[in-house]
Amino acid sequence: MTHPVRDLDEVVHQRVRLGILAVLTETKRADFTFLRTTLELTDGNLSRHLQVLETAGYVAIEKTYERRRPRTWVRATRQGRTAFAREVAALRALLDRVSPEEGP
Amino acid sequence: MTHPVRDLDEVVHQRVRLGILAVLTETKRADFTFLRTTLELTDGNLSRHLQVLETAGYVAIEKTYERRRPRTWVRATRQGRTAFAREVAALRALLDRVSPEEGP
Repeated sequence: MTHPVRDLDEVVHQRVRLGILAVLTETKRADFTFLRTTLELTDGNLSRHLQVLETAGYVAIEKTYERRRPRTWVRATRQGRTAFAREVAALRALLDRVSPEEGP
Repeated sequence: MTHPVRDLDEVVHQRVRLGILAVLTETKRADFTFLRTTLELTDGNLSRHLQVLETAGYVAIEKTYERRRPRTWVRATRQGRTAFAREVAALRALLDRVSPEEGP
């Protein structure tokens, strides 16, 4: 008997990181400010979680200058997309087992 | 623009705790050993996460003796079921936004 939560990868599953990868799946690439606003995070919190994802090889970060202003672009790597797809599959398996509509 | 990850409750979302509440939704109540085996956890890890859920009011823990052996029963409270149902709704909203089948 294998429970689907065993297939969840904590690097991807953590709430903020799941949000980052979800956005990057939808938008291909996003800048730091867009991620911060969309996910309602502080600079520090977003930076910390991006670092975890970059260390895992799940996102690539590119620091550029546009009209003399720094702009940080983030995109999911192929490895990151695969990890996110695995997470989504595990979550779907989990949701298939529960019927919360029958809840309290 | 509201992203569904904003609706995830970290107390419920954390991988092990999500697993505990999923099992308790399926089985009404479970004993400590069953949870530990099903979710493939150590005693210490399961205890720590049960404590977080109990403090949040999401599970009730009952220590009993059966045939002179201690047995710990765990069940989700009404509040815990509601929190889990909210998490499931947020996850469904998140999954509805992504199409990983179109991935790499």
